[in-house]
Amino acid sequence: MRVTLIAAQSLDGFITKHATPGSAFASAADQLHLRKALANFDCSVMGAETYRTARELIRDRMRAPRLRMVLTRTPQNFSADIRPGILEFSSASPAELLSDLAARGHQRCALLGGAQIHSLFLKAGLVNELWLTIEPMLFGSGMPLVAEAVDIRLKRLSTESLTADTALMKYEVLR
Amino acid sequence: MRVTLIAAQSLDGFITKHATPGSAFASAADQLHLRKALANFDCSVMGAETYRTARELIRDRMRAPRLRMVLTRTPQNFSADIRPGILEFSSASPAELLSDLAARGHQRCALLGGAQIHSLFLKAGLVNELWLTIEPMLFGSGMPLVAEAVDIRLKRLSTESLTADTALMKYEVLR
Repeated sequence: MRVTLIAAQSLDGFITKHATPGSAFASAADQLHLRKALANFDCSVMGAETYRTARELIRDRMRAPRLRMVLTRTPQNFSADIRPGILEFSSASPAELLSDLAARGHQRCALLGGAQIHSLFLKAGLVNELWLTIEPMLFGSGMPLVAEAVDIRLKRLSTESLTADTALMKYEVLR
Repeated sequence: MRVTLIAAQSLDGFITKHATPGSAFASAADQLHLRKALANFDCSVMGAETYRTARELIRDRMRAPRLRMVLTRTPQNFSADIRPGILEFSSASPAELLSDLAARGHQRCALLGGAQIHSLFLKAGLVNELWLTIEPMLFGSGMPLVAEAVDIRLKRLSTESLTADTALMKYEVLR
């Protein structure tokens, strides 16, 4: 199972603008990039807060054949939203979750936030790549890319331009 | 007076690794870039903490003809270090300081940190460009690039590679 963390951040490392949830600050070019990129993944994982923030958008776009897995301590609270194989909820640990997804035949997983989920998977050594959209903004505060102290070295794979101002940087996580 | 903020950060926006002061995490390529870049500035401004952390290095390199100005609430504490025209200490506001430097004939100022100094100058609308070295690391905690909430839009000027893994991104601050 290959896990790729995909996120958009301000140049100074925030995935939300101040206290506003979600990534409405991100450019249209980033949203297009995300949709195209996700077509290459057969599953995605996000936290419950990210799901709540993007719920309507996610449910509008469930035609794409990808298992969306929401990590939450209380999966029972979301039982009305379950669509088996398309949208599921789990309280498993990151390692258990990925092992279960692999056993079900999934091979490429997109990790879609937020900061707590990024931390959990990074600290468990379960992230292979990081695809980061860098928007031309400074926020000074907001939700950080990673919620806790980590010490992770990366190898840069590529730097592309999504627009004149927005960069897409891809890294491999070194172990 | 043109003011350029020059800094090195982890990919997730920290200018120190966790609680360790200084930028020892930065690559040799970044240090070489900084020395070369500073040759094009006739003055630099930094905060007292940045000065204390880099004091020996700064005093070793004072041959370069550039006025190093240290902003501090207590300039009198540094009277033994003063070398007029080379190393001075001031408690002026950012606008007063730049106005004074311009009156003395200076035209290009490098802003060298830390986070509080970045905030002060950015919030006062006194920064023209941002030259940011992006090291291939995630820290999750440390001193942020900007110490307070801001809402600043940038225009990307260039993206260069200092090494295969380290990028140098230059931006103009939009008003």
